[in-house]
Amino acid sequence: MIKGNAIIGQSGGPTSAINATLAGILHSAENSSHIVEVFGMRNGIEGLLKEDIFKIRPLSEDEIFALSCTPSAVLGSCRKKLPDPYGDDTEEYEKIFSFFLRYDIRYFFYIGGNDSMDAVKKLTEYSKKINYEMVFMGVPKTIDNDLEKTDHTPGFGSAAKYVATVMQEIACDCAVYTVKAVTVVEVMGRDAGWLTAAAGLPRLIGEKTADLIYLPEVPFDEDRFIEDIKTLFSEKPNVVVAVSEGIKTAEGEYVGARAQSGVTDIFGHKYLAGTAKYLERLVRERLGCKVRSVELNIPQRCSAHCLSKRDIDESFGIGKAAVSFSTRAATNDGYVTVLKRREGETYRIEYDCVPISEVANLVKTVPVEMINEEKNNVKDELLEYLLPLIEGEISLPREKGLPKHFKF
Amino acid sequence: MIKGNAIIGQSGGPTSAINATLAGILHSAENSSHIVEVFGMRNGIEGLLKEDIFKIRPLSEDEIFALSCTPSAVLGSCRKKLPDPYGDDTEEYEKIFSFFLRYDIRYFFYIGGNDSMDAVKKLTEYSKKINYEMVFMGVPKTIDNDLEKTDHTPGFGSAAKYVATVMQEIACDCAVYTVKAVTVVEVMGRDAGWLTAAAGLPRLIGEKTADLIYLPEVPFDEDRFIEDIKTLFSEKPNVVVAVSEGIKTAEGEYVGARAQSGVTDIFGHKYLAGTAKYLERLVRERLGCKVRSVELNIPQRCSAHCLSKRDIDESFGIGKAAVSFSTRAATNDGYVTVLKRREGETYRIEYDCVPISEVANLVKTVPVEMINEEKNNVKDELLEYLLPLIEGEISLPREKGLPKHFKF
Repeated sequence: MIKGNAIIGQSGGPTSAINATLAGILHSAENSSHIVEVFGMRNGIEGLLKEDIFKIRPLSEDEIFALSCTPSAVLGSCRKKLPDPYGDDTEEYEKIFSFFLRYDIRYFFYIGGNDSMDAVKKLTEYSKKINYEMVFMGVPKTIDNDLEKTDHTPGFGSAAKYVATVMQEIACDCAVYTVKAVTVVEVMGRDAGWLTAAAGLPRLIGEKTADLIYLPEVPFDEDRFIEDIKTLFSEKPNVVVAVSEGIKTAEGEYVGARAQSGVTDIFGHKYLAGTAKYLERLVRERLGCKVRSVELNIPQRCSAHCLSKRDIDESFGIGKAAVSFSTRAATNDGYVTVLKRREGETYRIEYDCVPISEVANLVKTVPVEMINEEKNNVKDELLEYLLPLIEGEISLPREKGLPKHFKF
Repeated sequence: MIKGNAIIGQSGGPTSAINATLAGILHSAENSSHIVEVFGMRNGIEGLLKEDIFKIRPLSEDEIFALSCTPSAVLGSCRKKLPDPYGDDTEEYEKIFSFFLRYDIRYFFYIGGNDSMDAVKKLTEYSKKINYEMVFMGVPKTIDNDLEKTDHTPGFGSAAKYVATVMQEIACDCAVYTVKAVTVVEVMGRDAGWLTAAAGLPRLIGEKTADLIYLPEVPFDEDRFIEDIKTLFSEKPNVVVAVSEGIKTAEGEYVGARAQSGVTDIFGHKYLAGTAKYLERLVRERLGCKVRSVELNIPQRCSAHCLSKRDIDESFGIGKAAVSFSTRAATNDGYVTVLKRREGETYRIEYDCVPISEVANLVKTVPVEMINEEKNNVKDELLEYLLPLIEGEISLPREKGLPKHFKF
């Protein structure tokens, strides 16, 4: 239980909830008897390496709330990979630890996804090597929900709420015409289909949504896909499809990469369609009907105008828990604060802390038994598991109809 | 001031506010001493031609509210063009007016955009020809805001609020990295740039948004576009661009159509990129930096989770006004209910009624003097004009975190 200063960084792709976790850490650090002052790194480790750090002033309650509702990463982010901490290339580590020493930094909080947990793990290992007394705490965030040892990841709930809401609205929009038409909607998720699965949620409350859902966890078969659409056409004229960007063929080839084969655009570049775009062409070619594709794209990870209150509450809570765990932890060790769902009918969460080695560089995918037999949708069981994560709304701080985002 | 039944239809591309107008008409018709019963056409005139009409039951206040917040067109829509009412091809008109006679329909309400106003005009002309006593009322809706004689169109405010909000969030998301990067966001609008202009709104409250905005009202120049980006790069690493899907070169060629030239995809089809996708490639080719494109796509017109309260109030109000005007109007005439903005500091609207001939088949574009000298952004003047239209939020009827949409 060392006393000293803390430093916080954000890393990886931003989410709508990553600032809520920052707010939670700041809120708790302010009241901690072990943490004296709090520094922020600009652009994560990338900034830290340039000593681009600043003392974070105490925030008012209103500011803490505004920060919690601000999408993206107010500290800036990076995609920096650190070298092997046991290797010869120690220059970056030496730099980082010299700053730690200079600013008497003893607590390191890093809010990020899988790659960021790898950085926490490596810094922990280097601190052990040089015996610098410090606690390293990873705090998860990712809309992909693909981290091990945590029931789900902060940031996922808001992204899932956005995907479910927009899919419901798109299905409404598509239902108005009588002409046969297919709409293919592409959802983020390279290896894990959690976010795409959320497209099914409106079903649970009897609302329209995607008729077909394809996840990367099972091989995608073009012929079966076309048959699935044909079957639905016998019932109604409009078919709405949700696909993970990362769906792959049985041979392991990304479907989105298929359209590249040999074709170049007018600039002479390899033509790279998205997954939905490729399927749009496939449907047009095979069925000749009206078809369009929609890529939900960046708004999935930054739609703070459609936050899940539960996600923001938990993202804030995990930040607070991270401070509490780290000030009680042994130094020279690395941890990750995680969410544990309690058994029972009512949804209840508690926070826990696990060694960083149990989380870093592992990917949690959707269990195949949660996908239906036809491999073209998810089971209600999975949706019921996801539903509590999107519940509750937040009324944003606004000015003249637009959100007011927090700035340092 | 004839007494009889009314029929309502929705037509053209759906919006988030078209059902609010339907709700307004139903609410007023219920209390009208001239309108006995109200029928709905399924899929507009397309359904009417098949006698696919039904009696609309009176709705409760809660149902009226739920209907007002439901995106898309609950009656279904169509894109049907009627023949010349003075021509020889009168079969469709005969059918329609035989139904009018059978159901004693004397009031016709059609909620739609430009093409729908053309249908109202033609039906009016045919009714005059055969001397069938009836009132025809067009009620505008379009996210494009391109109708004449109305200050703005119902449906535009909510779409503009969505575009402004999402642009602000995307600009937040793009600001987190230090690598030079361009993000091109494509907004709907073939000939009029109103919706794309809304991307500038966050600027008025000091928030991040698109740095560059290109509208179809002025010719788009590729070289100048690249220079605009270069200039911004000298100030900051992230450049966010908003473009109308309909931007054209000085020769009048759609920029989005340029990528088609001769290139075919793996199915042998002409390769058709979107406007943003084309510009993504152009930037990569010319500047070699990181670049991505985002097409805001369908959510622009159906994001009922991001409604402008003012838009919904006005869309409801214009429906009520349409009933009021039509029951006081001369029969055998066609009208459009419009919005008039009062002069003065405070935003105030009133409803008015104009002959259909003054609206049908005309397009209102953004005045060129509202675009800056460099032709790469809009003036504050235009933004201040648009700002009142996006003000206010609506708390949707929800169940378990998701919107509950109205169904008949």
